[in-house]
Amino acid sequence: MVKDSFAFKVTERQGRARAGVLTTPHGNIETPIFMPVGTQATVKSLTPAQLDEIGVQILLSNTYHLYLRPGAELIERFGGLHHFMRWKKPILTDSGGFQVFSLGDLREIDADGVTFRSHLDGSTHRFTPEKAILIQEQLGADIIMAFDECSHPEDYQYNLEAIERTHRWAERCIKAKHRKDQALFGIVQGGIHPELRERSAAFLTSLDFPGYAIGGLSVGESKSDMLRTIDLVNQILPEDKPRYLMGVGTPYDLVEAVRRGVDMFDCVLPTRLARHHAAMTLSGRMNLSKAVYKNDSSPIDNTCLCYTCLNFSRAYIRHLINAKEILAATLLSIHNVFTLVELSKGLRLHIINQDFDAYAEQILANLNRED
Amino acid sequence: MVKDSFAFKVTERQGRARAGVLTTPHGNIETPIFMPVGTQATVKSLTPAQLDEIGVQILLSNTYHLYLRPGAELIERFGGLHHFMRWKKPILTDSGGFQVFSLGDLREIDADGVTFRSHLDGSTHRFTPEKAILIQEQLGADIIMAFDECSHPEDYQYNLEAIERTHRWAERCIKAKHRKDQALFGIVQGGIHPELRERSAAFLTSLDFPGYAIGGLSVGESKSDMLRTIDLVNQILPEDKPRYLMGVGTPYDLVEAVRRGVDMFDCVLPTRLARHHAAMTLSGRMNLSKAVYKNDSSPIDNTCLCYTCLNFSRAYIRHLINAKEILAATLLSIHNVFTLVELSKGLRLHIINQDFDAYAEQILANLNRED
Repeated sequence: MVKDSFAFKVTERQGRARAGVLTTPHGNIETPIFMPVGTQATVKSLTPAQLDEIGVQILLSNTYHLYLRPGAELIERFGGLHHFMRWKKPILTDSGGFQVFSLGDLREIDADGVTFRSHLDGSTHRFTPEKAILIQEQLGADIIMAFDECSHPEDYQYNLEAIERTHRWAERCIKAKHRKDQALFGIVQGGIHPELRERSAAFLTSLDFPGYAIGGLSVGESKSDMLRTIDLVNQILPEDKPRYLMGVGTPYDLVEAVRRGVDMFDCVLPTRLARHHAAMTLSGRMNLSKAVYKNDSSPIDNTCLCYTCLNFSRAYIRHLINAKEILAATLLSIHNVFTLVELSKGLRLHIINQDFDAYAEQILANLNRED
Repeated sequence: MVKDSFAFKVTERQGRARAGVLTTPHGNIETPIFMPVGTQATVKSLTPAQLDEIGVQILLSNTYHLYLRPGAELIERFGGLHHFMRWKKPILTDSGGFQVFSLGDLREIDADGVTFRSHLDGSTHRFTPEKAILIQEQLGADIIMAFDECSHPEDYQYNLEAIERTHRWAERCIKAKHRKDQALFGIVQGGIHPELRERSAAFLTSLDFPGYAIGGLSVGESKSDMLRTIDLVNQILPEDKPRYLMGVGTPYDLVEAVRRGVDMFDCVLPTRLARHHAAMTLSGRMNLSKAVYKNDSSPIDNTCLCYTCLNFSRAYIRHLINAKEILAATLLSIHNVFTLVELSKGLRLHIINQDFDAYAEQILANLNRED
């Protein structure tokens, strides 16, 4: 049974948009899907019960952070991340690559891996493809990611070298993987360079991963570069495997990427914005700390069915923000995560109903590119 | 119906301990009861849904804080505190007296009231008995409190003058009150001086309030002074009215006070301790940030049935504390409030079962006086 615990089936299509079902050892995920991020084994300010009520189907957690604190061995002794953080549905862990490469001066790359210093205490550590897989096996997520290099998108020559490293590392990750109850996804890199993206997508496809991620986007490149790259990569990636666009999480980008055949997304944005007093809606962002909401008895979004919008006024949330109350972050996080989860559901429904394009246009008409 | 919306009935007694039912416009409260504190119209880090799940029957909110921010008029326009914060069960508001008197140099007392400066912006305000009632009528809690002076417990002469003021103010509060759907409780003061406490309890009893509070305790006096004062006051207060010991919230004090005939309690302690990483249990306090819990797979308290203890290990909570995650405060607040709510329920049950004394002894045997 273990070998069949992971599967993906595209059940409906409209244009290049797909609705599918991803089967994992911890249950099925209906795609397209947005995954909230629980960096340190918690989606900031939310309990697992609240995530469940929001309708979250899968969440992401970060290998780099958990490796440093509390440590992957500890989590393994607790039966893995699902048990440690009490999340019974699927989990995806990243490889640690993105975080390590984000350390800038604190890391040094060689052909074999990366040596880096902890942002917590300055201690020296080393990740290799084998180490990244070992840690992810200790963490025990349903979906794990190949160790890749997420490089600055512009420099052609650097990106050429980086994808070569990423490809060698992808092969080593496949070899290093032991657990049969985890699916390892490969990550396409190559910056904003079509030739490199094509080459990366083609090479990784040849390795026959059970799923693919598009990495290195939404890191500062233009929106048109991002969308063009997604277009290109998805024309090469196999149709029968899930496609995960890493680190993307605005409503605008979700719609545009689903339209281009992406199935999965993750982003810290909904919970980060919540801690900075902002609500995401399909009519754009609202900063609830503004004086204009002082006497506003409406919910954040009167079309929204989340716990926050069904119960609380903008005025109450503004009061909580003003009074520096933790509940402000919780209520806004509930709303923001719900908004992206519901948007994913809506996109899926309209793919199934074969009226995705009209629905997508209607949503995009109300949003700015940055929303 | 409005006139009968408030009632109290003692249904069982054992010794001086009482089990009762308090009827309010927002539902019944089974006593003895612990009320968590929602100072700024939120019990810190918890949603109303979580409070409901914990079994909270009534909560307290602070007139001084809400008057300053967001303002009582605003809350009134929102239909009162129940609607503003979306808590459908009973609420009690204090009179603002305790907070104002705690301002020290920022306030000046005269026979008519208190002039004070806001801790938020230094602006000048004035509370009189009439103003404290007006604000509490705007807030719209089920139980409101007379405006009193909570003075330092030691100085006899000062306390003599203070209770005289408090008594005049109590009369003025009764006169100022208009709403028929709120019950106004009088507050017995008098520091640690038996003659003053007797005098205060007797005078306030003569005013025939629907309920009485014992104020000015748990403010630095010795435990024996506190318990002796409760003993004394409860011998004078009428048997058929609820008795509320203000600001008290350790398991030890709850047991000792219920044994002496107290019905209601409030305290910030469970949520404050939670934000400082401490769990309350009937075997004493635990600081979950300690290294000893690093690998501890037990719940905080393996006899506890709260959401936190049913799901999470000490190691996970310690990790959240270490990682400065908001969820630590939420999970500890759930546990701590649950502990006091459940203790109240247990005390009630054993009064009804007529084995309260044995139960109380058993609990006290496991606690220090400071727990």
